[in-house]
Amino acid sequence: MKPQPPKGTRDYLPPEMARRESALATVKGVFERYGYAPLETPALERLDVLIGKYGEESDRLIFRILKRGERGKRGEVDLGLRYDLTVPLARVMATHQDLPKPFKRYQIQPVWRAERPQRGRFREFFQCDVDCVGTASMLADAEIVAILHETLTALGFRRHRLSLNHRRILSAFMDAAGVRADVRTAAIRAIDKLDKIGKEGVEKELEKSGTTGEAARHILGMLLEPETVSFEAYVAAAEKAVGASDAGRAGLEEMKQLASYLGHFGVPEEVLSFDLHMARGLDYYTGPIYEALIPEAGLGSVGGGGRYDFLIAQLGGPDLPATGASFGLERLIALKAEQEEVPPAAYSQVLVAVYDETVLAEGLAAAAELRAAGLKAEIYLEPQAKLGKQFSYADAKGIPFVVVVGPEELARDVVQLKELASREQREVPRAELTAALAALVAKL
Amino acid sequence: MKPQPPKGTRDYLPPEMARRESALATVKGVFERYGYAPLETPALERLDVLIGKYGEESDRLIFRILKRGERGKRGEVDLGLRYDLTVPLARVMATHQDLPKPFKRYQIQPVWRAERPQRGRFREFFQCDVDCVGTASMLADAEIVAILHETLTALGFRRHRLSLNHRRILSAFMDAAGVRADVRTAAIRAIDKLDKIGKEGVEKELEKSGTTGEAARHILGMLLEPETVSFEAYVAAAEKAVGASDAGRAGLEEMKQLASYLGHFGVPEEVLSFDLHMARGLDYYTGPIYEALIPEAGLGSVGGGGRYDFLIAQLGGPDLPATGASFGLERLIALKAEQEEVPPAAYSQVLVAVYDETVLAEGLAAAAELRAAGLKAEIYLEPQAKLGKQFSYADAKGIPFVVVVGPEELARDVVQLKELASREQREVPRAELTAALAALVAKL
Repeated sequence: MKPQPPKGTRDYLPPEMARRESALATVKGVFERYGYAPLETPALERLDVLIGKYGEESDRLIFRILKRGERGKRGEVDLGLRYDLTVPLARVMATHQDLPKPFKRYQIQPVWRAERPQRGRFREFFQCDVDCVGTASMLADAEIVAILHETLTALGFRRHRLSLNHRRILSAFMDAAGVRADVRTAAIRAIDKLDKIGKEGVEKELEKSGTTGEAARHILGMLLEPETVSFEAYVAAAEKAVGASDAGRAGLEEMKQLASYLGHFGVPEEVLSFDLHMARGLDYYTGPIYEALIPEAGLGSVGGGGRYDFLIAQLGGPDLPATGASFGLERLIALKAEQEEVPPAAYSQVLVAVYDETVLAEGLAAAAELRAAGLKAEIYLEPQAKLGKQFSYADAKGIPFVVVVGPEELARDVVQLKELASREQREVPRAELTAALAALVAKL
Repeated sequence: MKPQPPKGTRDYLPPEMARRESALATVKGVFERYGYAPLETPALERLDVLIGKYGEESDRLIFRILKRGERGKRGEVDLGLRYDLTVPLARVMATHQDLPKPFKRYQIQPVWRAERPQRGRFREFFQCDVDCVGTASMLADAEIVAILHETLTALGFRRHRLSLNHRRILSAFMDAAGVRADVRTAAIRAIDKLDKIGKEGVEKELEKSGTTGEAARHILGMLLEPETVSFEAYVAAAEKAVGASDAGRAGLEEMKQLASYLGHFGVPEEVLSFDLHMARGLDYYTGPIYEALIPEAGLGSVGGGGRYDFLIAQLGGPDLPATGASFGLERLIALKAEQEEVPPAAYSQVLVAVYDETVLAEGLAAAAELRAAGLKAEIYLEPQAKLGKQFSYADAKGIPFVVVVGPEELARDVVQLKELASREQREVPRAELTAALAALVAKL
């Protein structure tokens, strides 16, 4: 029996790492160009920081660490593994109160949840959060939406949709429809499913939630079919939906400002959809909410977020307004991998194969020259090995090019250059090797 | 009382992250150009994988995770946090037996040790390992030493020294001196301290170890003063030291091959020191061992490693020879930071400050243009804020350049460009802004 990583966890081998690192570089590039800076926090947090922040069900999913020594033997615990990246952010804002604000940070780190292991659900997985803490300005929300748009574009996804709504408009909509306070959350969850289950499905869900009669009919009358909805259509519907609610009208004013800022940010109108039914499950949002959907995921959510002005304080941080988004980065990487015709080279770009030990020095010199030009160039580490074995190694590692340095070639000041995919081989003057390979690698 | 991260752990705030990311990019670049590929493993490993691999004392330092549910309430544990990166490597070699070999991987991830917290000792810290599994060739050892050299050079350290020795030469040296088997490890630890405590110190340590009389005199007679020792001097000393031992002579042959390969790799002779006394504490080495020392660390070790041909199998992996090194990456980053005159920009490179909301669209357009050119350019997220507040924000975040977009400037198609360090301000035609800033940022 081969030893395995613990259930619900994975090794990231080089081919997977190559995909991840490429996607991470793209994502970080976008975040940083917008002025968001990286933050990393410890995997461990004190249990009193973690417990009671996510609700009882989630508290049970926190991995607890045994204390050292005798007290540990009695089963006492004092530390837990990070459950998400939002509680650590709130803790950081409290620990380091002199951080310049607005504090714009991104954080890409694993989190741990003791879920029952099952297909596609992991106990260790990465979260990718980008947040702006310390301003209530709609410009911050617009920036986060612009980042969602630009990140998906930079990752190579096309035809994505950004769904937007406002939490206070949604609440006012429920109030105006006459939904009872005790079933409001359930009613919101019901209409949030519109994209997946259609109007008839929502009708049934509303019934289950206890929202019936007049209220249900009012809500259903307001909902548009799930397709891209223009801002003008949204405003018209929302004005009716919120009625005379001050909170609702204030929310609508914020949405108007947000829509105008999104234009300034250059987010194209055709990717935006303003959806009165979109709710983003979580209860803590207080302002605009947004969700990124892509056809590659069956128009499922691959990221989203919203404004959460009271959460940092509730989680133990100072009283600061905040907004931000979270990406389903691992899902995006997997979706991107499905579309790839050729996976990125996981190991080297070039193998320098040497005919035998007599030409090893020349082989190593060639590899050093290629590396100095920035290429990933390795030498086969057993110079006495047959060339066939060295080629098999390149094949097994998916190394696209092999340079053969042999005594006969050395005498003529040339090398053999082989592209493994096409099995084409040609002779190249030794002095032109680096330029020739750099050109080939650039075309990959 | 401000909430803190757990004792012995740290938050990495943006200024520290900027240093780390820059050093990491350098280090990874070197590793990857030599054909070493990234690997990441879960933070959690099964306790049966972790326990019994490091010795009893270390076993006590492994953080144990409580089981879920009722059994957890009784204090049962089944998982632990990774203690180093070598046991996970052995486990990966066992889990994924079809990995192409030699398997050349690097791994930079945190490890956790429940040490008593004290100044400079952490319970969560990063290790940076680079290893080659699956070949006994000295070319692999030479490559690892070349990587040590190139990494330190690429990080900007000069005047480092690479100390080399061979475990079997050291063993034969002890045997030939007549050191009793039961005190051999203690004697080796004694001479390993030569650099720190000199010959007289070593004499005392040998006495403490129980190595006395003839054996101690023999050893002390062989040791050279701790300074750079040429390969020729080492060979002469080692030949005497190992006497007629076959294992010692075989070790010396390996060292000759290694030294020759290091020449091919272009590692300059003046950084190499061949030190008969250098032992690298750990017991598991079986061949060449190496250590990197830098004057910035008081010629303390900042990295090192060696060949460990039986360890992968001992740790539960398949029976594969291996060699590799580990970097004290966090120490190197700290040493580098001490030498820096100007820390790297932790946040943006440019703040676009807008005079008021009327010129916001133009400000955002300018920021977008700068970002499209690859610059980290943010806008102040509260457009109604006074310019003074916006400048203070740039100061607090160490943003080096501020571009002011104002209505009066807009009318003349110019912007104000201010460098915060010098407080110099100049007017730049709007069309030339991106080129001007790119040039300034490149000079930072």
